[in-house]
Amino acid sequence: MGRTTARRPVLRLGGPVEVERPDTLVVEEPLEIRVGGRALAVTMRTPGSDMDLAAGFLVSEGVVAGPQELRSQRYCAGATDDGVNTYNVLDVELTPGVPPPDPSVERAFYTTSSCGLCGKASLDAVRTSTRFSVDADPLTVTPALLAGMPDQLREAQKVFDRTGGLHAAALFDAAGELLVLREDVGRHNAVDKVVGWALREDRLPLAGTVLLVSGRASFELVQKAWMAGVPLLAAVSAPSSLAVDLAAEAGITLVGFLRGQTMNVYSRPDRVVRP
Amino acid sequence: MGRTTARRPVLRLGGPVEVERPDTLVVEEPLEIRVGGRALAVTMRTPGSDMDLAAGFLVSEGVVAGPQELRSQRYCAGATDDGVNTYNVLDVELTPGVPPPDPSVERAFYTTSSCGLCGKASLDAVRTSTRFSVDADPLTVTPALLAGMPDQLREAQKVFDRTGGLHAAALFDAAGELLVLREDVGRHNAVDKVVGWALREDRLPLAGTVLLVSGRASFELVQKAWMAGVPLLAAVSAPSSLAVDLAAEAGITLVGFLRGQTMNVYSRPDRVVRP
Repeated sequence: MGRTTARRPVLRLGGPVEVERPDTLVVEEPLEIRVGGRALAVTMRTPGSDMDLAAGFLVSEGVVAGPQELRSQRYCAGATDDGVNTYNVLDVELTPGVPPPDPSVERAFYTTSSCGLCGKASLDAVRTSTRFSVDADPLTVTPALLAGMPDQLREAQKVFDRTGGLHAAALFDAAGELLVLREDVGRHNAVDKVVGWALREDRLPLAGTVLLVSGRASFELVQKAWMAGVPLLAAVSAPSSLAVDLAAEAGITLVGFLRGQTMNVYSRPDRVVRP
Repeated sequence: MGRTTARRPVLRLGGPVEVERPDTLVVEEPLEIRVGGRALAVTMRTPGSDMDLAAGFLVSEGVVAGPQELRSQRYCAGATDDGVNTYNVLDVELTPGVPPPDPSVERAFYTTSSCGLCGKASLDAVRTSTRFSVDADPLTVTPALLAGMPDQLREAQKVFDRTGGLHAAALFDAAGELLVLREDVGRHNAVDKVVGWALREDRLPLAGTVLLVSGRASFELVQKAWMAGVPLLAAVSAPSSLAVDLAAEAGITLVGFLRGQTMNVYSRPDRVVRP
């Protein structure tokens, strides 16, 4: 994973002396995701686990929900003018019979036929596109189990300490065991990488799991959790109003401000069992 | 701005006693930006300064660069089923003769005709779409002036302390005077709101100014700074590799990890004049 970080010269000011030295930065590069040769999206991401990222993106978009729907994934054989493959274009072939995504702006999660676009319409759109129900997931965890997860995430993060620029997403089982951790300069990409890993491991829906993110919880992250069948989403920082509303709609337990031994539970607190 | 925050019930765990209380959250709602009645984009944003957001988005996309190119902006007159305007759909009318944007996925900043998509292609695409040059901007600032800006930003932030969920972007003049501050659940939106404010105030290009963001500096934020003609972008946290590369390409001074009296200067350090 030599492409995950890069060094650039930096001038450090404000200390006892001015220092010019190389600094380690997180790499950000474009990834174009194609489906059947047709461009679907370009995301700025940190290279690494690109197959997971593309697969998870397609789960989040409602295109696939199981590994049998993905026929193949490969980096485009083309290259730059000087003949080097950039590994920044990934072509996904769907299994014959799986409907390809609609790449238009009007697509997907937003109903734009009327002028009444609102948060409720966004919730409705996610509900009609997800293939998994999490409302009845019998997962229970204790506050102590949840409280131990951010430390596990930080210990497993290989790059963050060096660059300070990476978001992380980690998946845990009901016993608090870390199943997978993925990092990216974009928080949505980190979650897509986890979800794509799960798809490729044939673990969808992710019943009985906890998804932890290192930052805030937005509408988009709750949507991704629901599309993957995750019953509990925990965030180290604040959730937004629409994230809470979507979690309540889905029956997802949403935990925010998970720091030290304290946490806020915004929806479905019945899954957090107190002694 | 009653729509900027919302209250939701929360269960607080891990303290001496369990508490159920209302929590103040940042509002996240979709905004659909239309141009001439045609949907261009949907962004999840915090309501407030929507006209600035739409105008700044169009600057960032290379559609407009001055107020004379925007004929009008209005919330769509339509409403939800129960007759309430959601104020979540904004229609922008361009001045006759201004080419409308191309809403296809293949548009804009990414050249996807070959398989060689790479960071360099992203840099080239921004260079060919910006209308302003910042390379020769004669702005100079002292480290002390920069070091004072994050405190000014935090003092001016009205919502952050209550919700912990908002990004902020602030524009300063060369004397360190705060010109405008905008907040949003999305960091790119906060910057677009600042840029759109500048467009509507007929201040583009933003020569001789400093743009400060509360979080990290990504490629996208440097791109927005360049499209608006900002010569110095400062971030409280880490930049990415491609953010540094684009800043160097543009001749933008990029400052990261601006905390206390210390900072890292990643490009064009000649604008940061040490005593």
